[in-house]
Amino acid sequence: MRRSIATVCLSGSLVAKMHAAAAAGFDGIEVFEPDLVASELSPEEIRALAARLGLSLDLYQPFRDIEGVTDELFRDGLRRAEAKFVVMNRLGVDTMLVCSNAGTATIDSDEVSAAQLRELGDLAARYGVRLAFEALAWGRYVDDYRRSWNIVELADHPQVGLCLDSFHILSRGHDPAAIEQIPAEKIFFLQLADAPALSMDVLSWSRHHRLFPGEGSFDLPAFLAHVLRAGYTGPLSLEVFNDTFRQTDVGRTAVHALRSLLWLEDQARRAMGDAGGLLTDIEPPTGFDFVEVKAEDTGPVEVVLGQLGFAFRGRHRSKPVNLWTSGDARIVLNEQQARDALPHLSAVGLRVDDDAAAARRGAELMAPAVHRRTYASEVPLEAVEAPDGTEIFFGGGSTSGWVEEFRGGSGASGGLVLGVDHVNLAQPWQYFDEAVLFYTSVLALDAQTGVEVAGPRGLVRSRVMSSPGSAVRLPLNVVPPVDEHGPASQHIALVCSDVRQVVREARARGLAVLPVPTNYYDDLQARLGIDAELRRELEQLDILYDRDADGEYFNAYTQTIGHVFFEIVERRGGYGGYGATNAPVRMAAQQR
Amino acid sequence: MRRSIATVCLSGSLVAKMHAAAAAGFDGIEVFEPDLVASELSPEEIRALAARLGLSLDLYQPFRDIEGVTDELFRDGLRRAEAKFVVMNRLGVDTMLVCSNAGTATIDSDEVSAAQLRELGDLAARYGVRLAFEALAWGRYVDDYRRSWNIVELADHPQVGLCLDSFHILSRGHDPAAIEQIPAEKIFFLQLADAPALSMDVLSWSRHHRLFPGEGSFDLPAFLAHVLRAGYTGPLSLEVFNDTFRQTDVGRTAVHALRSLLWLEDQARRAMGDAGGLLTDIEPPTGFDFVEVKAEDTGPVEVVLGQLGFAFRGRHRSKPVNLWTSGDARIVLNEQQARDALPHLSAVGLRVDDDAAAARRGAELMAPAVHRRTYASEVPLEAVEAPDGTEIFFGGGSTSGWVEEFRGGSGASGGLVLGVDHVNLAQPWQYFDEAVLFYTSVLALDAQTGVEVAGPRGLVRSRVMSSPGSAVRLPLNVVPPVDEHGPASQHIALVCSDVRQVVREARARGLAVLPVPTNYYDDLQARLGIDAELRRELEQLDILYDRDADGEYFNAYTQTIGHVFFEIVERRGGYGGYGATNAPVRMAAQQR
Repeated sequence: MRRSIATVCLSGSLVAKMHAAAAAGFDGIEVFEPDLVASELSPEEIRALAARLGLSLDLYQPFRDIEGVTDELFRDGLRRAEAKFVVMNRLGVDTMLVCSNAGTATIDSDEVSAAQLRELGDLAARYGVRLAFEALAWGRYVDDYRRSWNIVELADHPQVGLCLDSFHILSRGHDPAAIEQIPAEKIFFLQLADAPALSMDVLSWSRHHRLFPGEGSFDLPAFLAHVLRAGYTGPLSLEVFNDTFRQTDVGRTAVHALRSLLWLEDQARRAMGDAGGLLTDIEPPTGFDFVEVKAEDTGPVEVVLGQLGFAFRGRHRSKPVNLWTSGDARIVLNEQQARDALPHLSAVGLRVDDDAAAARRGAELMAPAVHRRTYASEVPLEAVEAPDGTEIFFGGGSTSGWVEEFRGGSGASGGLVLGVDHVNLAQPWQYFDEAVLFYTSVLALDAQTGVEVAGPRGLVRSRVMSSPGSAVRLPLNVVPPVDEHGPASQHIALVCSDVRQVVREARARGLAVLPVPTNYYDDLQARLGIDAELRRELEQLDILYDRDADGEYFNAYTQTIGHVFFEIVERRGGYGGYGATNAPVRMAAQQR
Repeated sequence: MRRSIATVCLSGSLVAKMHAAAAAGFDGIEVFEPDLVASELSPEEIRALAARLGLSLDLYQPFRDIEGVTDELFRDGLRRAEAKFVVMNRLGVDTMLVCSNAGTATIDSDEVSAAQLRELGDLAARYGVRLAFEALAWGRYVDDYRRSWNIVELADHPQVGLCLDSFHILSRGHDPAAIEQIPAEKIFFLQLADAPALSMDVLSWSRHHRLFPGEGSFDLPAFLAHVLRAGYTGPLSLEVFNDTFRQTDVGRTAVHALRSLLWLEDQARRAMGDAGGLLTDIEPPTGFDFVEVKAEDTGPVEVVLGQLGFAFRGRHRSKPVNLWTSGDARIVLNEQQARDALPHLSAVGLRVDDDAAAARRGAELMAPAVHRRTYASEVPLEAVEAPDGTEIFFGGGSTSGWVEEFRGGSGASGGLVLGVDHVNLAQPWQYFDEAVLFYTSVLALDAQTGVEVAGPRGLVRSRVMSSPGSAVRLPLNVVPPVDEHGPASQHIALVCSDVRQVVREARARGLAVLPVPTNYYDDLQARLGIDAELRRELEQLDILYDRDADGEYFNAYTQTIGHVFFEIVERRGGYGGYGATNAPVRMAAQQR
């Protein structure tokens, strides 16, 4: 289907927005009137630029306050509309978005609204313009698409049809199923937006917090399926007002936006039972293949890994890269081309069934491919770059031979650490929503409900991306903007069956565990009523503890090395969390 | 009265918070339990540190989920409470905040809640602890202070009293007048917080958006007056959860917080008819005395002022400072100690009745005094520094002789510009609320309702500080965080009686007015139906136009010089705005 985007979704000038939309691969745009008004290009110049860029101008929007009004206001509205029809003719746009009246309506009557739209339709016909009438969620009287459809039916005019907007329908909790009863030729336009579950007035929610499909809490695949079942064949168009996207790089946001639309169309087709979706089908990853830390000198990380019982597995036969392992945990230490001199998380390898399919899907979703220097004899690894710059490798299966390229180390992997439990990735605040979509669409992970943790320098938003069964868990943390020098938020959590034993042995090898204050243990005992013996043991070993209805969580932290630290985790029963209640204690200790 | 602050209001470690509170001048603090839990200091060490800093520990908070519960949960609650009483004894805190149950309550009965608080009171008595029971706005059953008071009355226990929190009462719209009927000895604690008018769930509103008194929309002076009339003599304590304050410099936030409390106590005393408030009484400023622009080379600004018809009034007899005037508008161009090489707004002089009183009030409210190099023979000017670094001078009256220190220019001031209409100050986002309080408390300006304007790189929040009658208007603009290189947001708006004539003459002198696109005039004509003749004239002169029910606004802009630009304004009738609808057009033009 044709894909379109409203210029209000993007930052910068109208010209910059058009270039970005075309470069990303959109077929068309909605012209947001204030963007046109502020532009130095004439309508004819914009039309010519769009033609050169291969963009259609799909919609002129918005036109307000035209129905449900007194005759005097309506006459003035006709005058306003005619001036806009002239502009639309100059632009070559044939559809205008007409919003239900939220400002000046005084007449609560479908018949009056229909008559006024019919008369506007007569005027529009003279300019070859179609009117797509949309029920705003905060319309004075018309705030439900079933009512706007009734008005359009009553208007019974060839130039008068509907605009459907997922936000206006789903934010109000209206059932979209009745869309299927609307004749396709009367659905003139479709606008798509997601949004987080927020309890606030719908106008502020809409103006500031809309998200691209797949990033919020609306079931957009089901919504789109209803519209497609109605027979709609017009453009799928994004209209997302969002404070963050307005500020970020326009080219990046355009790619991000198109990715959401590709994902949505694929999901909707699958929801409709179309086996061949738009995108290559993949299964979620089944585990961590490796985690890579880069630095100019990875020596300090090797010291800690040795203390944690990891074995040096070998040095790469052609590159300054070392591999350390314990159980299934493989840590790659890379001294090549580090973007920062200090140790930092640079890549995560995930085990997938079909690495070629995963890479193909990544390319279809415009995930930047990662190109690392390889040698003919080496195992080729497919990889994409996540929004925060972390490289995600597709491993497992046919590529598992990469480990054999490391030579000279011990073959033993008998440490107490059994594998990687989760990897925390710090996200710049402006890329957080993009990251959520990236991990759900490109990697088929599920986004869990977000939480907020109070750190010493501001709230840390956290949302976990995980595979079914939680073999892969990637908590994404958003660090407060001013907290660049605060506690590190990226870390590798290693799982074991006895964290107390790991800490004891690591200490014997010289590891400095992150100290936990006595006050924490006083509170733990008060809160959870753990017995004095357990409390003493945990306190002595600087181990934190959490418990929920399903099980228990024991964990300890290393000191931060550069920008990264390690967590040792023991899970008992079905505990599925990450000890979030203890995070403020950890961050305060790291800040000291 | 004693002044206190909850540690949750401040960023950093508990030790850093205590130092900052003491340095600002607070008498005491509320110990927020998570801050204690995360601290490496023992309760005894914290007690000793507080004693050394001269801080009392006024409250231990919060204790949750203790009333309205089953007997089993209540027994576990007593165990939890006793452990906390032990900690409180070690800290030397004698009052605990007990929140109404928002989590585990299953019994909706004042009698049961009272009986449980009574039993907890018996236990507390053994530790010398008092319980201050607070109705949370989102309490499961107890969400109104009148109900928590009923429960406290029923409990009828010397250790059980009330905690009143302005947020929990005013956010629900509850009438605080009944507070006056509560016996003073039963009001154990008072927490104060303001908040903006937001329509969202009260828990999120409370957790993220509280403000210090004077910054939001609650009538806190009236609220405090009710509490004082009840006879309350305990501490006035701030409890403000706010995403921004958690991130900003702790010392700065503590001063800002204390300023709000001093202002509030002063306002409350005046509301109670106490003529001698806490602070020196002042009248709002009556006009602009001057505006200062600093730069290494102010020459380019002088060129523009000359084009606008300003006259060079003279050079300061002892400093590299020039004065240009037109009508009542005085622009000081200063080449001393510029914090930036490029032209920028550095100071605003305001006319006040009593400059000594204004300076005294500034000092009482801990506004940083400005010290400029002066010479014995010069007129001394009192000044304070605003949160964004702008220096605010108190002029007029006895100090008006400063103009006579400028020599060698023309005496003529017969330009078409008549005075300064308003001065827009760009605010870093993290200091915006502090700035609102600064201008209302230190300068006695009124904060108008805020607006948001869509700029090409994000939304710009704007709020106008103005004097009665609007002789002084200071719009504060918050620039989006990433928009450091975007359009300038600080400018000087000059008023005249005929903006068309000013632009014509300025152009004849070579001024390049900011160009306004033709699309703007097309839209203007469509929107407002102005006649073709006026449209042609405005378009030819690049003048923008707005209209409201009270009058009209004509304005034009100069190009930006360094970080500052000028606006020429003509107001007709009672138009009181700033042409906000045109701001996106202006910003887009500046971005080009």
